[in-house]
Amino acid sequence: MAKRIAIIGLGLIGGSIGLALKQTELERTEVVGYVRRPEAANRVLKLGAVDIIKDSMAATVDKADLIILATPVMAIKEILTQIGPHLPHGCTVTDTASTKVKVMQWAQEYLPPTVNFIGGHPMAGKELTGIEAAEANLFQGRTYCLTPGQNASPASIQLVVGLVSEIGANHLFTTALEHDNFVAGVSHLPFVLSSALVLTTTQSPFWAKMSSFAATGYRDLTRLASQHPRMNYDICLTNRENVLNWIDEFIKELNRFRRLIAEDSQELENAFIQARQARQAWLEKHDKKD
Amino acid sequence: MAKRIAIIGLGLIGGSIGLALKQTELERTEVVGYVRRPEAANRVLKLGAVDIIKDSMAATVDKADLIILATPVMAIKEILTQIGPHLPHGCTVTDTASTKVKVMQWAQEYLPPTVNFIGGHPMAGKELTGIEAAEANLFQGRTYCLTPGQNASPASIQLVVGLVSEIGANHLFTTALEHDNFVAGVSHLPFVLSSALVLTTTQSPFWAKMSSFAATGYRDLTRLASQHPRMNYDICLTNRENVLNWIDEFIKELNRFRRLIAEDSQELENAFIQARQARQAWLEKHDKKD
Repeated sequence: MAKRIAIIGLGLIGGSIGLALKQTELERTEVVGYVRRPEAANRVLKLGAVDIIKDSMAATVDKADLIILATPVMAIKEILTQIGPHLPHGCTVTDTASTKVKVMQWAQEYLPPTVNFIGGHPMAGKELTGIEAAEANLFQGRTYCLTPGQNASPASIQLVVGLVSEIGANHLFTTALEHDNFVAGVSHLPFVLSSALVLTTTQSPFWAKMSSFAATGYRDLTRLASQHPRMNYDICLTNRENVLNWIDEFIKELNRFRRLIAEDSQELENAFIQARQARQAWLEKHDKKD
Repeated sequence: MAKRIAIIGLGLIGGSIGLALKQTELERTEVVGYVRRPEAANRVLKLGAVDIIKDSMAATVDKADLIILATPVMAIKEILTQIGPHLPHGCTVTDTASTKVKVMQWAQEYLPPTVNFIGGHPMAGKELTGIEAAEANLFQGRTYCLTPGQNASPASIQLVVGLVSEIGANHLFTTALEHDNFVAGVSHLPFVLSSALVLTTTQSPFWAKMSSFAATGYRDLTRLASQHPRMNYDICLTNRENVLNWIDEFIKELNRFRRLIAEDSQELENAFIQARQARQAWLEKHDKKD
């Protein structure tokens, strides 16, 4: 494992990585943190998410073997340009953003060639945000996507694979292109649907009375609308084409359902049967529980 | 409370009502059940969901004060015509279907005028179906909609309100027209979206690889696709106009999101902020937890 790990950004994800690392009792690893707002430093230290907080990014990455960027995706470009000149020779940098193509481009462009970059995306989250919501077991059993940069050394890849394993997650190698297409379908399209469902219903003139009829189904379907708005926005900006494509595919399918309902078609029952079976197959294959 | 309660249909809902009633230890109330398939009778009795199973609907409703129809909605019309002639004078009949306008019309048309009909819809459910999935606390704290027929006596309404209370639910009076419109927005639209999302993703040529990237967000958003396909189909058939209207409203809103994403509009972040706040307000007002 690394001797010094730097975490830049200590919200839900960065804070949870810190807490998970602390739990593994890596006695020889020092975890150094940086937070944009100084007033957050005390809370981070009180929770024990890092050993020490530095007051500049340059000081944070100093002598670090492994640097983890756990900020919103749109902040990464700026951070890369800022830390670039201060990064130790041969160190490894990874991030935790939900989209990877842009991040890999920025890393290629702004990091010195002696630095290893491995894109990362822990597929874990919850509605609450910020360091207060951080928890050591957030990544337990979750998939953690890795997209190694073209110049990343085998040792640097191993270092990040080790980090993923230490915090309890399962690594999954992928390309940035595949990653962004796939998560647009299974994660980004869903949060757009959740948000659109909330606005469709809550802006209806019936909502004042109708809201009493909303139950657990509505709660589940709208859960992703409670994700951090800035994160959702950044994802859409950095993965626009994929998100638009999946929205278009979805509208086609929804219009098919609309037609089957309008026509009282027996095909409609088959569509529901097929959807149920396909979901069941996914749950079973990936050992998920409802 | 009623001296004799008859439950026709002992799947998830009917079975859970039976189990909940048994738990309240109503010593003077006998619960009589009817199941369409004789082979289900043993399981129902073994679970203790009813005191006795009768082999005909006529025998089941005999001397019953309160008759609960807990079958799929499309079966209700046929059952009403069959039990009509055998119903005790002045008894009370209720149902548990997810749509109410059609049920109220059928009750008006096929039940003798001496019978009190009160439409019912327990807003509870889960992905599993059948008597095996039944549980006594399924209705605990849930909303239970009631749509009294125009000739229902105050005493008969009180009887059904008492039933709802005995099984731990909270009754909510509404009209059948309002009910069907409102639940189309907060329950039926959501299960159509869930099913369409499952088919959009699982029928993609990428699915074999992409399925590994689907995580808890995908699981939550697709949960309603695991509801009973026949139930979903029946709901669409009996609530077609409302479901189509809500699909149309949703597509308008989704197209607005599509446009904001395509234009990189700052408005997009506001839409996500608004959706998150509106959901939060709903959670707080109705004391729901994520």
